Amino acid sequence: MALRHIALFRWTDGVTPDQVEAVVDGLSRLPSRIPELRDYTFGSDLGVSEGTYDFAVVADLADEKALDVYRDHPDHQEVLALIRPLLADRASAQIRITDPG
Amino acid sequence: MALRHIALFRWTDGVTPDQVEAVVDGLSRLPSRIPELRDYTFGSDLGVSEGTYDFAVVADLADEKALDVYRDHPDHQEVLALIRPLLADRASAQIRITDPG
Repeated sequence: MALRHIALFRWTDGVTPDQVEAVVDGLSRLPSRIPELRDYTFGSDLGVSEGTYDFAVVADLADEKALDVYRDHPDHQEVLALIRPLLADRASAQIRITDPG
Repeated sequence: MALRHIALFRWTDGVTPDQVEAVVDGLSRLPSRIPELRDYTFGSDLGVSEGTYDFAVVADLADEKALDVYRDHPDHQEVLALIRPLLADRASAQIRITDPG
């Protein structure tokens, strides 16, 4: 049984498309640098529902140990340093998922 | 490009394991009843991080039209009727994901 880490971000007022693009660029580099990431999806909210958060990240990992590696990885920390100043709110959870096929 | 719908729930004080189990049972029935659900994962937070929400649902769907079908489906509405009275907070987002290979 693998683990799915989910994080939703709400940006502060005044966050620019360029700042979000820098976050996207930073996150895009992580799968090639953190082999523990089995699946990694992220992006801006599509704006199809009311009251949604602005951005989501979903990381599938083998187990809690792999989650720790992802969390503490310097390349991840570098992107978090970009994200933190933009955050008005953050919501997260980790759930168990079935291993793929 | 498909769509990933993410919802995080925080339960009110006093929600019992039996109530959560009823939610899990209800959600478990949805994939066989709503063919629009390409992938459907959900469950209680594992308790491995601070400040997390209590429960997460991730639904992968073909597009916005499929999301509407899922949302409005009577079997889904039936589970939502179980969930709503238990909710202290809810966080959600929809992001674009790549279609599976």
